[in-house]
Amino acid sequence: MSQGTLYILSAPSGAGKSSLVSALLDQTDAIKVSVSHTTRAPRPGEKDGVNYNFVSVDQFKALIADNAFLEHAEVFGNFYGTSRLWLEDQLSQGIDIILEIDWQGAQQVRKLMPETAGIFILPPSREELQKRLDNRGQDSAEIIAGRMAEAISEMSHYNEYDYVIINDDFDQALAELKAVIIAQRQKLTCQQARHGKLLTDLLSENH
Amino acid sequence: MSQGTLYILSAPSGAGKSSLVSALLDQTDAIKVSVSHTTRAPRPGEKDGVNYNFVSVDQFKALIADNAFLEHAEVFGNFYGTSRLWLEDQLSQGIDIILEIDWQGAQQVRKLMPETAGIFILPPSREELQKRLDNRGQDSAEIIAGRMAEAISEMSHYNEYDYVIINDDFDQALAELKAVIIAQRQKLTCQQARHGKLLTDLLSENH
Repeated sequence: MSQGTLYILSAPSGAGKSSLVSALLDQTDAIKVSVSHTTRAPRPGEKDGVNYNFVSVDQFKALIADNAFLEHAEVFGNFYGTSRLWLEDQLSQGIDIILEIDWQGAQQVRKLMPETAGIFILPPSREELQKRLDNRGQDSAEIIAGRMAEAISEMSHYNEYDYVIINDDFDQALAELKAVIIAQRQKLTCQQARHGKLLTDLLSENH
Repeated sequence: MSQGTLYILSAPSGAGKSSLVSALLDQTDAIKVSVSHTTRAPRPGEKDGVNYNFVSVDQFKALIADNAFLEHAEVFGNFYGTSRLWLEDQLSQGIDIILEIDWQGAQQVRKLMPETAGIFILPPSREELQKRLDNRGQDSAEIIAGRMAEAISEMSHYNEYDYVIINDDFDQALAELKAVIIAQRQKLTCQQARHGKLLTDLLSENH
């Protein structure tokens, strides 16, 4: 039976994670970004099952009671969560799933699903990170300093991940991200899950 | 300080390992195939330090006494060995090294250098393997059966390796081999060795 890999992707703001993931999805088959459940109303253009799985508060609470979430949180009165059932269903179909979460969510997920591959995206330098955080708008020095402190706090957990990709040159970082995913599919346990029949056949003494 | 990775590549005859390695070396930088030491005389065209490190029997025995070899063997009265000192020198320069050895050599090397990445190359089917072993010449059914038995014996150790690559389509197998090597360079410990200054700089509270 085929078995996908669950990737945990984390990064500070300004590391370029979203652009990398978006380019990756354009170029790579059999990989999806995890679709969260939420109780907030769809915004114009958002599609159920694509941007979010939109559910009612009662449905969400029933899912919590069923222990259906790998992780969930309440933000501004709305619930958001990652459904374990949805994930496990996708993985069992051999689809790789990317979960874009912060280091705290990553720690929660690793406890419940130890067979993950963690990837941390870093900016190429402190100066470049500063520039990328500044560019976000016309904010005060204090707000920018707050963003930098948050980025440093997130980055201080980089060593909890299996892979570290430095996003200096975008195309190179994308190639590295793709290589990690292709390599993961060649790992012994993935190949055993995918090619059981071939392996039995190759090793059979009688033929 | 930079640190290369030691790859152990094994495969049965007929899996296409040598062609893959040769194409890999043409396309990938900072990777070399391990050059063995030998006491046999150079053949026409063979270069010292390229095809082999040619040494005298006395030199070879002195290296054995110095515990300089990761593994060595005597074949038809000539000595062959993999020098640990040479390997460690290359790895410390950040050069990745490929060691093409069988499962027995692989077990010896793993004991002495646990930080290896093992890759096993498999043929795409029993029928294809049979065809590739048949094609080698005009040999008797008995000799071909012997080769097949040897191939099965080698393949029975595939699950001692970190990665398994199935050489069905050559270009795809080559891309997978390259992906493993690129991914390995993004691993946490490799990146820490290579980008220590950047990591310190990114995480510094005072800037």
